[in-house]
Amino acid sequence: MSSLDSALIAIERACGSGSVIRDPSLLESYSHDDSEALPCMPEAVVRATSTADVSAVMKAAYAHEVPVTPRGGGTGRVGGAVPVPGGIVLAFEKMNAVEGIDKGELTTRVQPGVITGELKRVTEEENLYYPPDPNSLDSCAIGGNLAANAGGPRAFKYGVTREYVMGMDVVLADGTILKLGRETKKGVTGYDLTSLMVGSEGTLGIVTEATLRLIPKPEATVTALACFSSLDEVAPVVSSLMAQGQLPACIELLDEEAIRIVRPEAGLTIPNETKAILLIELDGEEARLEGELERMGNILFDLDALEVLVAQHSGERERLWASRRELSYSLKRQAANKLSEDVVVPRTKMADLLGYCAELGDRHSLLIPTYGHAGDGNLHVNFLWNDPDEKARVDLAIEALFRRVIELRGTLSGEHGIGILKAPYLPMEQSPALIALQEKIKDVFDPKHILNPGKIFPADAKRFHGAC
Amino acid sequence: MSSLDSALIAIERACGSGSVIRDPSLLESYSHDDSEALPCMPEAVVRATSTADVSAVMKAAYAHEVPVTPRGGGTGRVGGAVPVPGGIVLAFEKMNAVEGIDKGELTTRVQPGVITGELKRVTEEENLYYPPDPNSLDSCAIGGNLAANAGGPRAFKYGVTREYVMGMDVVLADGTILKLGRETKKGVTGYDLTSLMVGSEGTLGIVTEATLRLIPKPEATVTALACFSSLDEVAPVVSSLMAQGQLPACIELLDEEAIRIVRPEAGLTIPNETKAILLIELDGEEARLEGELERMGNILFDLDALEVLVAQHSGERERLWASRRELSYSLKRQAANKLSEDVVVPRTKMADLLGYCAELGDRHSLLIPTYGHAGDGNLHVNFLWNDPDEKARVDLAIEALFRRVIELRGTLSGEHGIGILKAPYLPMEQSPALIALQEKIKDVFDPKHILNPGKIFPADAKRFHGAC
Repeated sequence: MSSLDSALIAIERACGSGSVIRDPSLLESYSHDDSEALPCMPEAVVRATSTADVSAVMKAAYAHEVPVTPRGGGTGRVGGAVPVPGGIVLAFEKMNAVEGIDKGELTTRVQPGVITGELKRVTEEENLYYPPDPNSLDSCAIGGNLAANAGGPRAFKYGVTREYVMGMDVVLADGTILKLGRETKKGVTGYDLTSLMVGSEGTLGIVTEATLRLIPKPEATVTALACFSSLDEVAPVVSSLMAQGQLPACIELLDEEAIRIVRPEAGLTIPNETKAILLIELDGEEARLEGELERMGNILFDLDALEVLVAQHSGERERLWASRRELSYSLKRQAANKLSEDVVVPRTKMADLLGYCAELGDRHSLLIPTYGHAGDGNLHVNFLWNDPDEKARVDLAIEALFRRVIELRGTLSGEHGIGILKAPYLPMEQSPALIALQEKIKDVFDPKHILNPGKIFPADAKRFHGAC
Repeated sequence: MSSLDSALIAIERACGSGSVIRDPSLLESYSHDDSEALPCMPEAVVRATSTADVSAVMKAAYAHEVPVTPRGGGTGRVGGAVPVPGGIVLAFEKMNAVEGIDKGELTTRVQPGVITGELKRVTEEENLYYPPDPNSLDSCAIGGNLAANAGGPRAFKYGVTREYVMGMDVVLADGTILKLGRETKKGVTGYDLTSLMVGSEGTLGIVTEATLRLIPKPEATVTALACFSSLDEVAPVVSSLMAQGQLPACIELLDEEAIRIVRPEAGLTIPNETKAILLIELDGEEARLEGELERMGNILFDLDALEVLVAQHSGERERLWASRRELSYSLKRQAANKLSEDVVVPRTKMADLLGYCAELGDRHSLLIPTYGHAGDGNLHVNFLWNDPDEKARVDLAIEALFRRVIELRGTLSGEHGIGILKAPYLPMEQSPALIALQEKIKDVFDPKHILNPGKIFPADAKRFHGAC
């Protein structure tokens, strides 16, 4: 009997009959995520129902050296949930309970399979608020959000996932169950392994429960849309708003191509000469919001906005956001292939990077629509192509983009992670000594390299996924 | 020649003549911090002037296996900066430059020897704000703040040190210089070693420069003092304020004993029957503050406040805060010995813990004055004694306190760290598997155990400092 079969028998015995799926027609949807990473069929999928299940899976996998790839909603953009040959997928769709909302402590306890949008909805029913809002919130899971340290538009005001994680239960590679972090807001007892786990893309341990911090729900929200005649005007606007003490919930950028897509669906009159839009949302006390909106409008007009439109009714806001959220998918429909690069530069370097993207498009004859979280300098630069022959040009342009991002003292990923697709570029940002140090930490947590192999580290990605 | 002498010769050669201090009269002040931890004379003190110096010190120390204890302002409360026998102290008072404030990015670049209060002052001159405000801000250094993940009153609204650290240069045990983190607000490229380093008490690496995030300076501040007739009323007040969407900059608690000390200096008329005070600060836009203060005042009276006093002029505020900041030292003057335990419980368990402290005082015939950051459930529980014979009773009471804190799902330290003094209690909060995992991480960063030995881990504290 192969070691895989032995592991699966042990898992089925521990987790119950039906927990192990081997039907190829069911396995297919677990072979890929929402990226251009090459799919890889898992040997089996295990649907966990408890921390004990996850521990049993890892004990068996550890004993038999079977690679395990944990999977949330499968919405990742860098191949982080793509399994490796001979490996199994550990799926969390059955561990999807919001186990409690503590209104006194402003916390919630969740399982990793909870859909982010569902968590937002149930907390808002209690007049509380879980701020992280990745674009895929209707289908992504909290477990994946923890793995990638997900952000979203409102990270500008409220911060990313890590800032809302107080503690967690994790299962290590050998099946050991650990409690990390705490249930209190502050704490400095030992090393901050909770923060280390968040953003580690399932390579150090598997989160099976988490205590998340909530905040009171903002009383009201207004959305303004400021139109500008040039992309160059965007970065100074962000800096000026901040310098004047304005703290919107988000400042989203749409470039000309993105505007072209949003325009018909948003139901707003956008001036023809508009080349860049900032979608700005203010939230807070209802009584103050109108005054703040007026103050911001004045600032935006002083900064040469062509027009400032306001979506006050929730219907208008929803239409606007629906189009913004659809953008990623709308772009995908424009061409056979799309790569969306999630880069970040210091805010004051955004104009520089946007100019460089235009240059790259010209130089490589590519369409490079860009949108993203302008308040954070976090841009999603999209490369679209139809003909497979174009891929070489796209690769050159992407490498040039990353090089420029690093020159501008930026980083390769703001909220998607490194996964498979960005692993080959890691050495552009990090020194060999820093990569080696992280590999040693990986060895401590996962000495047999069975936890989501082939992610983050260039040598691993090449070995397991052929990425190079 | 001893290996210590060989190391010191190599260090003096690399760092320049005069960099190594061996005069016993000068060494004494580096033998202790601001805690009851037993002093230990270092063999030498090295005053670093650059990252290159620190790297040279660590290379020599690594080669000759000489223990190195980094030291900021020496204001620690758990012995974290106390050297070990045969070891040297690496002092940062000469690396005290604020190297730049970037008003566009809202960041600053600092050396570890910068005094926290000085950083706050120079950023405020630029109309920016570095929120962490540990009590010792006039003498503690940023390096120490990073080591302990320092908090302070305003952590309630603004969060602790970790939330303001974007990236850092660190020197590892073998002298390797690494850049960790980033200069952008977001980023998920590789493991979050920046967060791991913050709060690691100098046991994993030595920070030689850090990029810190700043925020716009709040336009104005008002301080209110709410008097209550019982400690039991405090915790519900905090919960009610939060449930009603109030977000003060801080909610500080003073118990009866603390009030007795503050009363003569604060220049405010506090009702005689006052048994607990909440010192609440609101900050933000000047135009809105008066309205907010009124709203909060109404809530406080609804919650049975005996009196709500307002310190609107900066002179009054300063007097109030000066007394609050002096509290720790004032308490020290009340008895020959003081231990201040920095514990945290979930906010809704605060009344329970405060009641238990009163019980402990009765049971062990001890005076246990308590104050702290009520908004975060972070209390500083003080044990005072004069007669050395009393120490055994104090130890029993402290152990009982910690046991209760853990029962209430709290943590042993909110902002001071574990150091030497709390190391023996670590197993009360953390499982053997979790402690072992952290020890393995320590081994990766510091295989020869020369970086601030004897801190955090119980076995190490016992071996190097005799703590048990």
